Amino acid sequence: MKTLLTISYNGTNYSGWQKQQNSLTIQAQIEQALEKLFARSIELRGASRTDAGVHALGQRGVFVHNHTIPHDNLPLAINNFLPQDIRILKSELVAEDFHPQYEAKNKTYKYRIYNKRIMNPLEHQFAWHLNASLNLELMKKASQFLIGTHDFNAFCAAGATAKTTIRTINWIKINKIGDIVEIDINGNGFLYNMVRIIAGTLAYVGYGKLKFLEVSEILKSLDRTKAGITAPPEGLILIEINY
Amino acid sequence: MKTLLTISYNGTNYSGWQKQQNSLTIQAQIEQALEKLFARSIELRGASRTDAGVHALGQRGVFVHNHTIPHDNLPLAINNFLPQDIRILKSELVAEDFHPQYEAKNKTYKYRIYNKRIMNPLEHQFAWHLNASLNLELMKKASQFLIGTHDFNAFCAAGATAKTTIRTINWIKINKIGDIVEIDINGNGFLYNMVRIIAGTLAYVGYGKLKFLEVSEILKSLDRTKAGITAPPEGLILIEINY
Repeated sequence: MKTLLTISYNGTNYSGWQKQQNSLTIQAQIEQALEKLFARSIELRGASRTDAGVHALGQRGVFVHNHTIPHDNLPLAINNFLPQDIRILKSELVAEDFHPQYEAKNKTYKYRIYNKRIMNPLEHQFAWHLNASLNLELMKKASQFLIGTHDFNAFCAAGATAKTTIRTINWIKINKIGDIVEIDINGNGFLYNMVRIIAGTLAYVGYGKLKFLEVSEILKSLDRTKAGITAPPEGLILIEINY
Repeated sequence: MKTLLTISYNGTNYSGWQKQQNSLTIQAQIEQALEKLFARSIELRGASRTDAGVHALGQRGVFVHNHTIPHDNLPLAINNFLPQDIRILKSELVAEDFHPQYEAKNKTYKYRIYNKRIMNPLEHQFAWHLNASLNLELMKKASQFLIGTHDFNAFCAAGATAKTTIRTINWIKINKIGDIVEIDINGNGFLYNMVRIIAGTLAYVGYGKLKFLEVSEILKSLDRTKAGITAPPEGLILIEINY
């Protein structure tokens, strides 16, 4: 039987999702917890390879094992063997041929910017600090060029190995809540560093380093060097993956 | 000249505010930063001795030194020598006889409870996890007995050395924001662990371990053993000190 887990984590102390030698990763921590619970080695396949320092509220992962723990209790059973900064939120049965990555219809990410002169130390793990005041109206105008199906090569980190750089962005919402500018973005899939490059580019527009119309030109150029910086990982949260 | 600083910190990695041998404390970190900035040893006197794990957005502290850095720039200058989890927010000149503790008119604390079955790992440093559902109306009714001037001996940790256990609570507000129950409390001063014992007692009322009327009896009893548990430090934030 195949089990789909919904997973949340604070990525601050991890080298990202994916297992790698000599590094603390979220995948490895959960596989170790599953091994302790079931007394056998179990592979967990994730839906999204989040980078070092990136957080998740709704990551997904599947494993194959014929267990008898009710799905309502399985999260608590696994959480017993996990550190406090990783929690399994939900467990459900899925079909044997279910693939968590390929079957995702869309994903939602949130990018958070703490926009005040001096950083709030309760937010330094969870937001990018920018002290230059951001103009949200210009950021919203710029973001509209990115909605729809486009070749996002200009918003993809060099060296990425995706077969195609065409993706669809369904919506982008930009709001200020207290001192935090939140960029919420939903799409059918995201290239390597794509959300962080979009956040960095929209921030450039917000403090006047780019004009909002230039974002349209950057998209058409397909040239990564034209876009803004890759915003740092701590501001990024994988919110939800929908099937 | 005497300088008053407004200070914020994530208390997770510290043994509290007050300097002590062989422990990392917030007071010691800031004194070291001041020493690096001014190249001489400087004593920082805090307004409130927050415990290990407790956070602050508006702690205050004073130091005496004839410096020439404008107050608008001093926070940035000190922050250069501080770790990311401590930030000086503001600096201002005060009278030579100003005392940050004795002259405080009132203080506001916030206590945060994450009230859902499974903890959110982005909140584990900043909230107490209670999975039993809390009844806010009963908590609000119970909190009203504590408003005003009372002997709070029942809400003071054993071994505390305050001259009197009489304090005035001006207001208590209880709200739910998303999955977080927030208890905001303002008073003229607080006994050792008083806010955390109030939070623990109101939580008992919220999940039915105490009746709301019993809080009146607990207050009158002056007996610490009658009140609820001391809620854990991670949920507590010193919000503001008013002079």
